[in-house]
Amino acid sequence: MTPEEFRRHGHALIDWIADYQSHVDKYPVLSPVAPGWVRSQLPDAAPEQPEPFADIVADLDRVVMPGITHWQHPAWFAYFPANVSGPSILGELVSAGLGVQGMLWQTSPAATELETHVLDWMADLLGLPAAFRSDHSGGGVIQDSASSAALCALVAARERATAGRSGTEGVRAPLTAYITDQTHSAVEKAVRIAGLGTGNLRMVGTREDQSMSPEALEEAIRADLDAGLKPCFVTATVGTTATNAMDSLPEIAEVCQRYGVWLHVDAAMSGSAAICPEFQHLQRGLDGADSYCVNPHKWLLTNFDCDLFYVRDRAALVSALSILPEFLRNQATASGAVIDYRDWQVPLGRRFRSLKLWFVLRSYGAENLRALVRRHVEAARWLAAAAEDSAEFEVAAPVPLNLVCLAHTGGDEATQRVLDAVNASGRAYLTHARVRGRLVIRISVGQATTELHHVQALWEQLREAAADRPL
Amino acid sequence: MTPEEFRRHGHALIDWIADYQSHVDKYPVLSPVAPGWVRSQLPDAAPEQPEPFADIVADLDRVVMPGITHWQHPAWFAYFPANVSGPSILGELVSAGLGVQGMLWQTSPAATELETHVLDWMADLLGLPAAFRSDHSGGGVIQDSASSAALCALVAARERATAGRSGTEGVRAPLTAYITDQTHSAVEKAVRIAGLGTGNLRMVGTREDQSMSPEALEEAIRADLDAGLKPCFVTATVGTTATNAMDSLPEIAEVCQRYGVWLHVDAAMSGSAAICPEFQHLQRGLDGADSYCVNPHKWLLTNFDCDLFYVRDRAALVSALSILPEFLRNQATASGAVIDYRDWQVPLGRRFRSLKLWFVLRSYGAENLRALVRRHVEAARWLAAAAEDSAEFEVAAPVPLNLVCLAHTGGDEATQRVLDAVNASGRAYLTHARVRGRLVIRISVGQATTELHHVQALWEQLREAAADRPL
Repeated sequence: MTPEEFRRHGHALIDWIADYQSHVDKYPVLSPVAPGWVRSQLPDAAPEQPEPFADIVADLDRVVMPGITHWQHPAWFAYFPANVSGPSILGELVSAGLGVQGMLWQTSPAATELETHVLDWMADLLGLPAAFRSDHSGGGVIQDSASSAALCALVAARERATAGRSGTEGVRAPLTAYITDQTHSAVEKAVRIAGLGTGNLRMVGTREDQSMSPEALEEAIRADLDAGLKPCFVTATVGTTATNAMDSLPEIAEVCQRYGVWLHVDAAMSGSAAICPEFQHLQRGLDGADSYCVNPHKWLLTNFDCDLFYVRDRAALVSALSILPEFLRNQATASGAVIDYRDWQVPLGRRFRSLKLWFVLRSYGAENLRALVRRHVEAARWLAAAAEDSAEFEVAAPVPLNLVCLAHTGGDEATQRVLDAVNASGRAYLTHARVRGRLVIRISVGQATTELHHVQALWEQLREAAADRPL
Repeated sequence: MTPEEFRRHGHALIDWIADYQSHVDKYPVLSPVAPGWVRSQLPDAAPEQPEPFADIVADLDRVVMPGITHWQHPAWFAYFPANVSGPSILGELVSAGLGVQGMLWQTSPAATELETHVLDWMADLLGLPAAFRSDHSGGGVIQDSASSAALCALVAARERATAGRSGTEGVRAPLTAYITDQTHSAVEKAVRIAGLGTGNLRMVGTREDQSMSPEALEEAIRADLDAGLKPCFVTATVGTTATNAMDSLPEIAEVCQRYGVWLHVDAAMSGSAAICPEFQHLQRGLDGADSYCVNPHKWLLTNFDCDLFYVRDRAALVSALSILPEFLRNQATASGAVIDYRDWQVPLGRRFRSLKLWFVLRSYGAENLRALVRRHVEAARWLAAAAEDSAEFEVAAPVPLNLVCLAHTGGDEATQRVLDAVNASGRAYLTHARVRGRLVIRISVGQATTELHHVQALWEQLREAAADRPL
């Protein structure tokens, strides 16, 4: 494809995306296709000869779009937000167009330095302790996801706990890790991948609000110490996935510091709210954390993948993950004056991901991002208040931010019926959770174009469904 | 940003990229900035208020571009190719514009099914054994990089070797892994992350051509068995990074099968060549491999990240990596009729990455991709022949494909002088390796726009530099 052809097809696809943005609310939120339908539309073999680009674009509409579940729909209330924006999409475009690798400072200084700089900006916006900034002992890096951040944190913790020996001798001493049954499954996966063994993962008891009990954590750590095991890693959560429970960081940090255990704080779900001063109290206690992650790709208008992973002591992370083969040696690295982000993550290669976050921060300004967060929180609170006032629904968990968990007062079967009816209508998409065994409908308010009136329309649908009326 | 503003700014940035493509060869290949320069151009804090989009684009030119090392320059001969193309960039754009998560089939069926389908296409184009196809026991998945593929393969191997116990009880039995000193450092990193311990990583001896010695591999495995250890994982390489050495897969596979050891084949560097029938012999022996990866993001015009990771037994991979929390349960998953790719990788979230590969395969057709590979191989062979005919240079390693290793006949100091002179000129970018201790200049021919005349121009520069004449 020549630059001139690229220009022509590129303009067409920009228009295609602008059109999609304009009418995404006309689609059923959840794709209606059956398993195998998309594949059944595709030829058995790759083409030997070029096809006209227009045919490919036509197949986007014919084959791909029916198989899309529309995360960007304003009535997307499922799982978690994954909101995107024009500036972010264009940041991805520029990153793809430049086609550089940011594995070393040397392989594109701007990719490294813009990332360091924008992550320092974000540390300040989020009110993180200064230690997490690159001009202190720590620093931030963009990971693809909170799962990868948890894995990197765990490996760094593992090496700190064993003075680097588990990386060289293998995991031998039984190292233990601590979560609750509300912690994201990514941590259990990391424990498995890093070879600690999920049998050495302790499920710490929770308080009434489903947050980790610091007392139970301390008990579990002491029991493991008494048994000759080595407590190594705790994950506390700012906003659990199921119900948005907030672990008490100050209390948990105190326990971790007392026993020298690495504290990782997973704020993937809700940390973005901390750009608003009135929500920074949810992250109080980070002074005692060793690592932290937050996902602008969930709730700050930035395309996936953009997980911001911060550490207090970058040396602990780098020493756990750095291997320097001959072919990567270069003067800048040898000088020690630069960051090579390949040593802060699992992969060697990396895209220029800070561009999209830079585009978003500059295009909106912090004030407009705060307004987005506040709009979603207000809409969620409106919904919770409406449900509390109703006879049909109960609010099944506290609503600190933008996630509302509702249960039909008639019990699980009624709740399931409402959930299925709304999803079948195509007018909204909701997912579920269980709160102490009870089925609840999770309503996550956070897409870029979701306004109060979308939440109000959802509330009407929920009430209709609860009354067994057609939607 | 409204859809109309997106349209306007999007067109402008498409033009910006088209212009960049048109004049990328006017830049010095290697960024000339000193450490800290890019950051020094940026304000200390994120803006509170929106900035005009035109200001951001202006800063792309003012701040970012000086800090770019131009991987897309036709005189890029460093590290490895990372060639991109118009269709691939536009595939990334559409993926960003749709903003969907492909973690489950349910969360966008098209993202999963197109990936499965295109990876089956690629399996056929590359001549992989049928077992690696999704309609047999195996299947393919897009990973961000060969590093992540190696980690996933290793964790699956670890669980197979311990009947799933190391994931639950922790890594206890000393499990051993086998590579050579030419294997990519990603495998050593994976061994460290997965908790086997790099002390249990064996450096198997090599043959004269720097390929793994199957005899030495068997000896190492037997010695470990005799010592009561459990051999678990071998990585063989199709095209090592340093010199493009080709491990003998049939002989290595035979050893692995004899001892029940997982064989992972890392074809990240050179596997793309197998789309040409005349190069498929380099991958003969894959019948005996358990997993395999190849990087279209290196040498098939597809933007990073696009590592294709195939397994012979998908159940082994999925059982090693799957954890199903309540909030991800859904009918499609429960039916067993669909693939949920989150179980094939470290992260939960995933972008719609198959779009870019689909765009590339259809826009070019397999025949044009083969022509690209052949053009690069021919240019590399031309260079090797020219060097062999010269008095100044020796070809320091076999040239099976598109990587040429040259040493100045005057020794390491002379070689270093030539390398530095060419890189300082800005007219090309070369990196180095050591072949049995000897310094060599690596010339990797593989960028999208690199033609024979660019390689011929490089040869002139090398000769001028060798003669200490100004470039």
